[in-house]
Amino acid sequence: MNNKLLSLIKPFYVMEILEKAQELEKGGKNITHLEIGEPTYKVHELIRRHAKLSINKGKDKYSSSLGLLSLRKKIADRYKAKFGVEVSENEVILTTGSSAALILALISLIKNKDQVVLVEPYYPCYPQLIKILGGKVRVFKTHAKDGYQIDTNKLKKFINKEDKVLIINSPSNPTGVSQKDDVLSFLSTLKINIISDEIYQGLSYIHSPDTMLKYKSDAIIINGFSKFYSMTGWRLGYLIVPKNLIRGVQKLHQNMYICAPTISQNAAIGALSISDNDINKMLDGYKKKREYMISNLIDMGISLPYIPDSAFYVFADMSKFTNDSLSLSMDILESVGLGVAPGIDFGPSFKKYVRFSYSSSLKNIQIGLDKMREYIKEYT
Amino acid sequence: MNNKLLSLIKPFYVMEILEKAQELEKGGKNITHLEIGEPTYKVHELIRRHAKLSINKGKDKYSSSLGLLSLRKKIADRYKAKFGVEVSENEVILTTGSSAALILALISLIKNKDQVVLVEPYYPCYPQLIKILGGKVRVFKTHAKDGYQIDTNKLKKFINKEDKVLIINSPSNPTGVSQKDDVLSFLSTLKINIISDEIYQGLSYIHSPDTMLKYKSDAIIINGFSKFYSMTGWRLGYLIVPKNLIRGVQKLHQNMYICAPTISQNAAIGALSISDNDINKMLDGYKKKREYMISNLIDMGISLPYIPDSAFYVFADMSKFTNDSLSLSMDILESVGLGVAPGIDFGPSFKKYVRFSYSSSLKNIQIGLDKMREYIKEYT
Repeated sequence: MNNKLLSLIKPFYVMEILEKAQELEKGGKNITHLEIGEPTYKVHELIRRHAKLSINKGKDKYSSSLGLLSLRKKIADRYKAKFGVEVSENEVILTTGSSAALILALISLIKNKDQVVLVEPYYPCYPQLIKILGGKVRVFKTHAKDGYQIDTNKLKKFINKEDKVLIINSPSNPTGVSQKDDVLSFLSTLKINIISDEIYQGLSYIHSPDTMLKYKSDAIIINGFSKFYSMTGWRLGYLIVPKNLIRGVQKLHQNMYICAPTISQNAAIGALSISDNDINKMLDGYKKKREYMISNLIDMGISLPYIPDSAFYVFADMSKFTNDSLSLSMDILESVGLGVAPGIDFGPSFKKYVRFSYSSSLKNIQIGLDKMREYIKEYT
Repeated sequence: MNNKLLSLIKPFYVMEILEKAQELEKGGKNITHLEIGEPTYKVHELIRRHAKLSINKGKDKYSSSLGLLSLRKKIADRYKAKFGVEVSENEVILTTGSSAALILALISLIKNKDQVVLVEPYYPCYPQLIKILGGKVRVFKTHAKDGYQIDTNKLKKFINKEDKVLIINSPSNPTGVSQKDDVLSFLSTLKINIISDEIYQGLSYIHSPDTMLKYKSDAIIINGFSKFYSMTGWRLGYLIVPKNLIRGVQKLHQNMYICAPTISQNAAIGALSISDNDINKMLDGYKKKREYMISNLIDMGISLPYIPDSAFYVFADMSKFTNDSLSLSMDILESVGLGVAPGIDFGPSFKKYVRFSYSSSLKNIQIGLDKMREYIKEYT
């Protein structure tokens, strides 16, 4: 048994909240979930229709390891049309969720004991995956007072020769912040491989969506259909890799995954046919929910010294109420039946923080924030 | 770039055959595929119905990382009912194909430079995955003259203290052979972790299906829905792990995969409700195809000094015709338009062998074997 590794891998602390929530729900308690980073609305009719057609026609066997060519071409065309970057369908590799994309990118870039730089606060899986793959994690901090923008001068000094990869996640989970274009542009000047996790791309409510590819043509891009199209359980992501990595990543993919789920690939062709009108309606919904959440949190005295402009998260400093947001999260759950994600999941510097998600319905968010108001009033 | 690893990973040689076949097909040539290890029949109506219901009802979000409890319970019950072994639903973990199950099993058991023993001929991904995960491959040979049964005395002498894991695959790809019960029973006495890949379990035409769990309660079992239920593109497998590994594997799974595809999990509940009558019809079909293939290969002078009793493969010694079955496979493809899998994919000892698959329709198999007969008559 690989005891050392298994004990090194941390569970998500939010899972403890979820498990407790399920226990309370079984006991009859009404729980409102604002801890989950998953859009809850139903997938678009076109996605369902393409999926069912794929099932009815028996298009449910292995696809080629790179994925369906027609879908890869649509993705390449979209990057060209939206961002003016040159992407060939040969550089697009469909994967089982963006998790697989990240694993393939890391394995293709790092070997045992290589260093990988993460930007804190970070998606909880990043450090765990790096550890699983034998790499070393180095953490570069960002701060609410800087709007969670990367301080480029500090980063330049921070990075050393042993650092092989920098992972950026813009828009970010948990902050809901996109890095500014001059930051992305600066990152392209660093002598380091960049994996750009763009899974929340398109969920931008103030600035236009962006891609690292615009600034660095050999960045490895990670994206997928889970967040923007609400297709979480469909497990479909993709990689865009520079030409010199295609063959290597393909060999890894063949051996590790065979191919991405075929029905999901066909469904994704439907997703990319959704009209701009329907997409804009969805984005308008997120804008409303975002404004509602921000104004209500501020109104109840939770300080938000930055602007969460994208994704569907608000990352709040709760040091006014606690030194340990995991205990606070558990107390909020037990006291008023509201689930929130403890900041410790996103890096050790953020153990006084809490992440609120506005990925669920406006009604659910309203109920959740009413509970939060009650908690602050009655229990703090 | 992790150049060393990427260059170490071998592609499947059968992919070269497939690519050449596609090229010829584009040129208008009719190709018969007996190289593919994938059942071509349509999935059962119950699988499609459950999948579409899952889509219509919006049951398409993340499942719990271990998978849907109702499906895990059905799988545990099935092992109890079929094999009389005690399996709890807590020990069943649903994965994205059996590939993910194998990766999770390996990571949970080996660390960098640990040795893993494979039984040759082996599934081509095994050595590649071990290399990707930093392990060392040791190869134990089996032979057609022994019916590809493991020589237990030789294996006992072969295994040393540095060997951490033995992977067995019974029924086997590429031989279509199941290990006898006294072999499985003997393996349980070895002081080594056993990963038993039972993905072809149930596709047995002479003896009853079996599981390593009957002989060794702490074996890690790998299984899935791809082969028996023809659900290859649905990417759904599972692990059965001993209690002491559940938590570790769950943490790895959360971080590496989040969860198995949710619609496929719901569809699999449909698969496990298929009547015995329908299952027996499918098995009768395989029996007929197996007999047809074996008798025709022998009839055209291809020696089969062993009995392929399970899965849907026949592994044939072609040394009468070639010293290099990759060239032979390519020549068969170009001369008569028949795809077969070169033996080199399954281990260096088998470069004079070819794998024929009877996973497609009887009609396709008939056409393919007629082409093979023509090839032997006209081109050798």
